[in-house]
Amino acid sequence: MYDVIIIGGGPAGLTAAIYLIRKKANIVVITQKVGGQIVDGPLMENFPGFEKITGSEFAQKVRAQAEKLGVKIIEGAEVRKITKIGEDFEVEGTGWEKIQAKSILICSGKSPRKLNVPGEDKFMGKGISPCVTCDGPLFADKSVAVIGGGNSAVSAALELEKYTEKVYILNLGQNLIGEEVRLDKIKKSAKIEVIPQAKTAEIIGSNFVEKIKYKELVSGAEKEIAVSGIFVEIGWEPSTKYLEGFVELSPQKEIQISANNETNVAGVFAAGDVTTTKYKQSVIACGEGAKAALSVWDYISTKK
Amino acid sequence: MYDVIIIGGGPAGLTAAIYLIRKKANIVVITQKVGGQIVDGPLMENFPGFEKITGSEFAQKVRAQAEKLGVKIIEGAEVRKITKIGEDFEVEGTGWEKIQAKSILICSGKSPRKLNVPGEDKFMGKGISPCVTCDGPLFADKSVAVIGGGNSAVSAALELEKYTEKVYILNLGQNLIGEEVRLDKIKKSAKIEVIPQAKTAEIIGSNFVEKIKYKELVSGAEKEIAVSGIFVEIGWEPSTKYLEGFVELSPQKEIQISANNETNVAGVFAAGDVTTTKYKQSVIACGEGAKAALSVWDYISTKK
Repeated sequence: MYDVIIIGGGPAGLTAAIYLIRKKANIVVITQKVGGQIVDGPLMENFPGFEKITGSEFAQKVRAQAEKLGVKIIEGAEVRKITKIGEDFEVEGTGWEKIQAKSILICSGKSPRKLNVPGEDKFMGKGISPCVTCDGPLFADKSVAVIGGGNSAVSAALELEKYTEKVYILNLGQNLIGEEVRLDKIKKSAKIEVIPQAKTAEIIGSNFVEKIKYKELVSGAEKEIAVSGIFVEIGWEPSTKYLEGFVELSPQKEIQISANNETNVAGVFAAGDVTTTKYKQSVIACGEGAKAALSVWDYISTKK
Repeated sequence: MYDVIIIGGGPAGLTAAIYLIRKKANIVVITQKVGGQIVDGPLMENFPGFEKITGSEFAQKVRAQAEKLGVKIIEGAEVRKITKIGEDFEVEGTGWEKIQAKSILICSGKSPRKLNVPGEDKFMGKGISPCVTCDGPLFADKSVAVIGGGNSAVSAALELEKYTEKVYILNLGQNLIGEEVRLDKIKKSAKIEVIPQAKTAEIIGSNFVEKIKYKELVSGAEKEIAVSGIFVEIGWEPSTKYLEGFVELSPQKEIQISANNETNVAGVFAAGDVTTTKYKQSVIACGEGAKAALSVWDYISTKK
């Protein structure tokens, strides 16, 4: 029986693991992918202590730090179900036998939202990507589109601008939303063209993406642009499907937590992007992971 | 007129500054000491991304990162008073002229209550620590003392018991105060020895702590015990004296904040150890600083 099963190995889960292993708690981290979504993210320039670091470098550092302290990580794992048994919990899924623990810390993050248009599934990985850092360089000297209008669309476009021939931003809204510094750069760029009030309608191609069809919301007209790559930056969905009926979720399906990361179920805690915390940032997730770890520790150490 | 005056240059304040300057906000950080209390701690081994780093190294890194981005820091400064003028604020103190801003972010931290005994200043960071979570593991297989008699002393002793050789608790009072489950564990522990009605008199050593001298209050006798580490768990004082009557404080004199770091005064935000957040850790303060910065940004960018 573990003291704590940590679900998720992103910034929140790994920080929590570091805190708990240093208190000699008997823990395991189960995760689909160590580092979580930061591995797919661009360069981090706002994490205190690192002037510039890629998400995957950061994830490797924190993983090494955790494993050196003795943290056991089960990777490639997917949680199917959590059951309360008396005061304890049982976690079932793919990648391990049933495991039990006195408490659960959920840090399962969020995953990219889909467009739900024809061609999206067909061309996923064949020109469509949720990850500029991973796949951007494949489109050197080609034309690409970024779909979205928020901070992540803005930063994706600025990253692609460095090596592609042309970057379209298809924005459903009128104005891009993002940091002023970045919005300025977009305005000044000769390579980036922003198409406002454009709703993506279809992804077209033979074996790979060739065109994107969109509807001009104002005129109602349908237009096409030729692109080789499409980066979908329209937001995220919290990874909480397996938790429905187990813990209280918000209308946005995020886990409802208290100031000390408790859920509505005694013994179940949550931290990071999967929760109702308003702002989603790596350093915030790390702080929340530490806070949740200390809260879990209070819980298990005051149990008989 | 600044957009934001950040009071305090510890982990919370500096992280907030990094976030705000990247949004092109017009900000200034005023602080007594860059780094705040982490500069006095010895080694951090639980900050994600750094296997081992001293507090002052970390503070230097984050300072350099902030200054490279253009953050202006006024050091050696002490805030005397904040006044609300219309919707704006004026900050008075030593080390600058009166300055005005649209909003205030308070990150002025806390300081550990002191024993006020000979040797305390000399051995701070050389065997004396105010933080078991941070420094406890450095004393594996050694003898240590916890000074204090409340919940934090009790939980510090139980944590230290797991890996140290021997834990003394020097309690000024007759009985420890804490949760029953934990008090039971203390009683049953073969490693923990409680010394009641003991007043710490002196910390003794050459380069590092070697002994602690205390007075038995009942007999009046002075005694010594050999220890390598001393954890002072007699509480903290939030740095909020200059804020009384300006923002709402808790009974412990911490700034009362919402989930998004708002105080009861519109335009005034707070983050880190100075607030009512339960757990005080560097990485938590960094996360809170980022969160507060985003909240302040929302506030100033939606004004006018």
